[in-house]
Amino acid sequence: MEPYELTASEASKLIAERKLSCEELVRSTLKRIEEREPTIRAWTYLDPQRAIRQARELDKQPAKSPLHGLTFGVKDMIDTADMPTSHNSPVYFEHRPGKDAACVSVVRHSGALILGKTDTVEFASGGRKAATRNPWNLAHTPGGSSSGSGAAVADRMVQLAFGTQTGGSHIRPASFNGIYGIKPTHGAISREGAKMYSHTLDTVGWYGRSVADLQLVAEAFRLVGHDTAAPVDVKGLKVGLCRSPVWRKSEPAGRAALAAAAKRLEAAGAIVIELELPAPFGELNAAQETIMQGEGRAAFLPEYLAYRHLLHQDFVDKVEGAHGITPEALIAAYDLAADCRRTFDGLFGKELDVILTPAAPGEAPEGLHTTGDWAFNAMWTLLHVPCVGIPVGLGSQGLPVGIQIVGPRFSDAALLRIADACAPVIDLGGTIPHVESEEEAVAA
Amino acid sequence: MEPYELTASEASKLIAERKLSCEELVRSTLKRIEEREPTIRAWTYLDPQRAIRQARELDKQPAKSPLHGLTFGVKDMIDTADMPTSHNSPVYFEHRPGKDAACVSVVRHSGALILGKTDTVEFASGGRKAATRNPWNLAHTPGGSSSGSGAAVADRMVQLAFGTQTGGSHIRPASFNGIYGIKPTHGAISREGAKMYSHTLDTVGWYGRSVADLQLVAEAFRLVGHDTAAPVDVKGLKVGLCRSPVWRKSEPAGRAALAAAAKRLEAAGAIVIELELPAPFGELNAAQETIMQGEGRAAFLPEYLAYRHLLHQDFVDKVEGAHGITPEALIAAYDLAADCRRTFDGLFGKELDVILTPAAPGEAPEGLHTTGDWAFNAMWTLLHVPCVGIPVGLGSQGLPVGIQIVGPRFSDAALLRIADACAPVIDLGGTIPHVESEEEAVAA
Repeated sequence: MEPYELTASEASKLIAERKLSCEELVRSTLKRIEEREPTIRAWTYLDPQRAIRQARELDKQPAKSPLHGLTFGVKDMIDTADMPTSHNSPVYFEHRPGKDAACVSVVRHSGALILGKTDTVEFASGGRKAATRNPWNLAHTPGGSSSGSGAAVADRMVQLAFGTQTGGSHIRPASFNGIYGIKPTHGAISREGAKMYSHTLDTVGWYGRSVADLQLVAEAFRLVGHDTAAPVDVKGLKVGLCRSPVWRKSEPAGRAALAAAAKRLEAAGAIVIELELPAPFGELNAAQETIMQGEGRAAFLPEYLAYRHLLHQDFVDKVEGAHGITPEALIAAYDLAADCRRTFDGLFGKELDVILTPAAPGEAPEGLHTTGDWAFNAMWTLLHVPCVGIPVGLGSQGLPVGIQIVGPRFSDAALLRIADACAPVIDLGGTIPHVESEEEAVAA
Repeated sequence: MEPYELTASEASKLIAERKLSCEELVRSTLKRIEEREPTIRAWTYLDPQRAIRQARELDKQPAKSPLHGLTFGVKDMIDTADMPTSHNSPVYFEHRPGKDAACVSVVRHSGALILGKTDTVEFASGGRKAATRNPWNLAHTPGGSSSGSGAAVADRMVQLAFGTQTGGSHIRPASFNGIYGIKPTHGAISREGAKMYSHTLDTVGWYGRSVADLQLVAEAFRLVGHDTAAPVDVKGLKVGLCRSPVWRKSEPAGRAALAAAAKRLEAAGAIVIELELPAPFGELNAAQETIMQGEGRAAFLPEYLAYRHLLHQDFVDKVEGAHGITPEALIAAYDLAADCRRTFDGLFGKELDVILTPAAPGEAPEGLHTTGDWAFNAMWTLLHVPCVGIPVGLGSQGLPVGIQIVGPRFSDAALLRIADACAPVIDLGGTIPHVESEEEAVAA
């Protein structure tokens, strides 16, 4: 087994035991990139020589944390002091922000090795798409806007990577690429230094190839409960199977993945109950869109004033208010979201431990002109709740499909414990059994 | 009259009519700074030669907006591409962020001349205080954390300046320095590039020496309604006199200012009614503190991990959770705030046009070790509502005292129209008449 094939947590253990050096890990990872990057096109910036020098430095130092020496990719709309941050926009071509974003700073000072920047949708928002291809089928999108991060982790070109989610930019690519991802509770980690799109929605998350990988990073961020959350047993776990108010948008592969996850959990002793969210939750996707477009108006005003000719029309439309979002609509969306957040937290307790719900409609669509539909993510982003994406297996086209589990606000560490227990049950790989009907798909 | 004495809107008119050049304005302003800065100590960075060259460039160009050629100060925790951003922290001594903050970019591309950076409290949060003195009495604080911006505008060392408010860092210094200021609706302008403290609370605002000055900047930011809000008549204006739930913290000068403002408005035909906010509003100040401290934990984690030895103990405490904020307390604070926001907006309409409330307890306290008490600001920051600070006159110590008017979310442009009508009635300068009793102070 080559070092690049190790998960972050496997490599962390070997580095701590001095059985693997940071230099060996990064050299192996860089070799993998050299082979695969011309095909996958996940990276917008790499400096292999610098990475090797950094790895050597790390080998001289005592480990600062379990992230010591692990390779990290950074979505190219998150600032890095030593690499350009281009936002997939000609406005910021080769731009050097001069300072690490908060999330980059935290993992860097925990010993992680920032390997490079990964391609994204223009400003992680709209307009230009990433050049990145889905490692499972090059004709398909890896999803977006965390396109490069998702594909790079899936293709074992890096062990961990940051993404962000405003609509469904983080958990959807996790599903499309067959990897693990967490979108934490909004505000649980600082979003400073990630390009602003919507201050109410933008959330930094990360990808790994196991739940343990995700936990390593959660520890570096000192997420509430990371050191106290108790291990979980699937037996007796109360799982709410939530088709979500946009179930009509699911595709056969997405339905099959949800059904398979539910059946596998039930077979392992979980108590799977069908959960229908109260009616107002049906309006949350529209509210998410209102807030995203409404807040995008102020977010992109600086670029509009200075470089309008370099912006995709999407951004001109946002700033000029082409979406027609009124202050009244924005306020109504804020207030609805606040109500639903409280209601949502109240669902958990005696009757419910965790929610199981689709991560994407189905397999990644064909073509790089699209990044797929974020309908199954928008609501959770607006609810500010933590979501963990877990792979289930392959759809009929041979592309991965995952599900996500969701908990109440600030239960991130506990949710990762649940994920840790559920993942071995859910993530069986192989082709997901076909589902005949909607009834079968949702029967617990 | 020297050009530096002009308000922003007066200078704007003269520049538009080509009766004043940008170079004349900046040279006069720089001369004023040269005379006064050794005494006031408002600035952390100035480059006079560069400012003159920029002014000459602006004189060659057609005006981009009414801000063309006006001088702007920037609180030194807001990024500027061409000047250091030091956050009053040794961590960021002479730090060059490489990119303008969103607010700086907007006014710069509207033609404003960024003159320099103004002193602040460490990270606009705690710890180290600004060196700035109150221009009205050098032994007193100008307030904080927008200390330098408030004092510089008051002392006519600059025409306009950015501040920020997380607790009461913007409107309180407006009151202490006898100037005008607006804290817009949270999210109405982008906070990107201003140091993160609390993502729920941090709000960029600006100072001027008249309501018209504030309106010029509102126009540059295209605040909703800036081009459609109708002029307002004081006669018949329904003003809610709100002592606020922390009235016990007011001092004689603050009570006198509120009473004087109410009486003056009433004498001009306004309908002043006493307004008591519903009981839950009494818990908002505590909720603001919970959110500020709770969110500060993630905000300062990067600096804590990398430069703990250079941080004031305040920040170590925040990150280590010395305030003991639990996720449950944070969630309760979020939910309370959301409820009160909706209730607050609902107060306006037939019965109420605007709220009149203290901007600070009283005059600026003595000493530079303090920046005064933000008790009268915390609630409004958390409510996300726009606040405009208006001077009233001088207290018994000869220091200015103002009030603030407050409207519902996103009524910024309408609130500035109300301020425009009320300011000539309220802002009479001179010593504010003494108030005998609390009853007199609050009687309409």
